[in-house]
Amino acid sequence: MINKLVDKIKKTDAPVVVGLDPMLSYIPEPVLSGAFAEYGETLEGAAEAVWRFNKGIIDAVCDLIPAVKPQIAMYEQFGVPGLAAFEKTVRYCKEKDLVVIGDIKRGDIGSTSSAYAAGHLGQVQIGKSCFAGFDEDFATVNPYLGSDGVKPFIEVCKENKKGIFVLVKTSNPSSGEFQDRLIDGRPLYEWVGEKVAEWGAEAMGDTYSYVGAVVGATYPEMGKVLRRIMPKAYILVPGYGAQGGKGADLLPFFNEDGLGAIVNSSRGIIAAWKQEAYQKFGAENYADASRAAVEAMILDIRSALA
Amino acid sequence: MINKLVDKIKKTDAPVVVGLDPMLSYIPEPVLSGAFAEYGETLEGAAEAVWRFNKGIIDAVCDLIPAVKPQIAMYEQFGVPGLAAFEKTVRYCKEKDLVVIGDIKRGDIGSTSSAYAAGHLGQVQIGKSCFAGFDEDFATVNPYLGSDGVKPFIEVCKENKKGIFVLVKTSNPSSGEFQDRLIDGRPLYEWVGEKVAEWGAEAMGDTYSYVGAVVGATYPEMGKVLRRIMPKAYILVPGYGAQGGKGADLLPFFNEDGLGAIVNSSRGIIAAWKQEAYQKFGAENYADASRAAVEAMILDIRSALA
Repeated sequence: MINKLVDKIKKTDAPVVVGLDPMLSYIPEPVLSGAFAEYGETLEGAAEAVWRFNKGIIDAVCDLIPAVKPQIAMYEQFGVPGLAAFEKTVRYCKEKDLVVIGDIKRGDIGSTSSAYAAGHLGQVQIGKSCFAGFDEDFATVNPYLGSDGVKPFIEVCKENKKGIFVLVKTSNPSSGEFQDRLIDGRPLYEWVGEKVAEWGAEAMGDTYSYVGAVVGATYPEMGKVLRRIMPKAYILVPGYGAQGGKGADLLPFFNEDGLGAIVNSSRGIIAAWKQEAYQKFGAENYADASRAAVEAMILDIRSALA
Repeated sequence: MINKLVDKIKKTDAPVVVGLDPMLSYIPEPVLSGAFAEYGETLEGAAEAVWRFNKGIIDAVCDLIPAVKPQIAMYEQFGVPGLAAFEKTVRYCKEKDLVVIGDIKRGDIGSTSSAYAAGHLGQVQIGKSCFAGFDEDFATVNPYLGSDGVKPFIEVCKENKKGIFVLVKTSNPSSGEFQDRLIDGRPLYEWVGEKVAEWGAEAMGDTYSYVGAVVGATYPEMGKVLRRIMPKAYILVPGYGAQGGKGADLLPFFNEDGLGAIVNSSRGIIAAWKQEAYQKFGAENYADASRAAVEAMILDIRSALA
């Protein structure tokens, strides 16, 4: 799957992933009221609204980008109906040939990590048959529990040609509370980065590893160091746009081959219609506003890389 | 909810939580084939088998214990039907007046952490009404992202009188890879423990905080130190039984009031019928075997604390 991701990035010339992290406040009134009319103001109604909103955006941007990143928390908040909307979104994106990165930040130990990996990237055996639960292409994984937590994911990745992105340095302001603390003179995130390189060496695609890393756009200096520590890891870069990261900040995350990083924007794309710059589209054309925002983001990144 | 947990621990004289972490291999053939007969060898059939298996155990042990801890990964592996079985299990346990600790190990930032917290411990507003997605009483939370990741959970806990257990030192063999690394001469888990105490000070119940910690039974020496660092935090102690922890190892996790810790056993209880000691019960009486295993665990812990 890392090979497919690299191919699609080359073809689209767009190292960009759209974060499908819908909040109800992002969804235009006509979409909301249509879903509520059919399912009521319920968890089911909210989940349906999320799905319809997503479908509009996916249809509008799928030819421009290689990948999407649905953030499962935004679905999980609506309970079981919300997770059904997550599954439907994943399936639809795959039908559109988009690479799907499940932003699930799971992490546990042994058989529990195996269960998460099976549910999101692999299959479970039931009687004589095998079934895929959510079936994303990549998942994000939390490293706090160490190798016991990460290796079960890697096993499932190898079997199913899937991939993971391990949280190394996250984009949020307080990420330094633990991640930046010095251990033998070097910050924790560097030690995690070294582990990512080690884990990834045993799970290589053609040029990059199945094991990637998450490093926030808001920390370009740290991105530079981590790029060197994990040369074969694809870096998933959140924090562009709404969180303050800019195109020019992104250079350190890329390798000299122009590859090695994929930049996420969520709110900046899916809620573009609410921004002043895209207000002219109007609520009913929210998906066109998202397309325009994707085009602007691609141009910004291309010119930074040029 | 921390007050209710403490009350129930006192009433049952059992600082014990049963981990509802069902694997299909733990489920006796008659339960499996009953569910498959109705729903087929499908995700739905597996989820139904899990639910029926759980119900048998809950009915058999609910008068002995204060709390249960369903591990969501074991449900999530079966996709949406699995998560429906999780939700049904949570609801049924609450009907039986058990405190439910959702072992979800979530952790993200800002609005995303808020969404997890709303879905598992709080409510989401949809139109004019509010709805609870999964509605556990407590949830486990991963601290790697720092305060930005944890505080949204604490806000929801305060509003809804719920609680969290933050991963501090996990029970697995490789937990030391990052958690034990020295920062200014002290291991990372101590720094996390200090943060737990700080976060918890602002969210106090009558005698203990809404903010607890997870510390593995397999590391009693570290438990001793952490007990001192976080005197008001309830410690959720996994790793007893199948993972190697014994009653005598548990003393350091408790305060002098005999409170302050609750010990989890999963496989050792729910798959008791497969162990030599409980084989006499037979597969069809698996729930009675679980009850006997709970009774033995309670006696072991009571005598260690005596």
